[in-house]
Amino acid sequence: MTFTAHITVMPLKELLDPQGKAVTGSLHNLGLAGVHDVRIGKHITLQLDAADEAAAKTIAQDACKKLLSNPVMESFDISIVPTVAAIKA
Amino acid sequence: MTFTAHITVMPLKELLDPQGKAVTGSLHNLGLAGVHDVRIGKHITLQLDAADEAAAKTIAQDACKKLLSNPVMESFDISIVPTVAAIKA
Repeated sequence: MTFTAHITVMPLKELLDPQGKAVTGSLHNLGLAGVHDVRIGKHITLQLDAADEAAAKTIAQDACKKLLSNPVMESFDISIVPTVAAIKA
Repeated sequence: MTFTAHITVMPLKELLDPQGKAVTGSLHNLGLAGVHDVRIGKHITLQLDAADEAAAKTIAQDACKKLLSNPVMESFDISIVPTVAAIKA
């Protein structure tokens, strides 16, 4: 079975996010004054073949730990959904 | 009222994603053979002050169009949730 994993990798709350801080400033300059606390991370989608949802989650966690996130600076969050045939085609 | 906007900016489906392709190869090298079609985008969270959820969504869309996404290469998706006091504190 094929699953789609949606993975969000964000900088840890305890750390400064200089990119987010720069974007906050730029948004203020563009006239969007009500925006604050911008934080910028990565969103990764991937397709994976696995027997069931639990196995798919294990593979996705493995991918996050080995390559996609840096545990010193980032946290990750995974959601797994079965890939709909129409999307797969 | 304060809202949290979760914004996902992804490369358009029609376009090649060289970063995703490189990551697919790396995951295969790490032994995760069942993974394919990796696509990498940005995830942005921001806090914004607005009268209601509709107004908050308008501000977030404005931010995406003016700064956070490139419409030629990327699509964006916004979800707005009221900021819980405990998270805000």
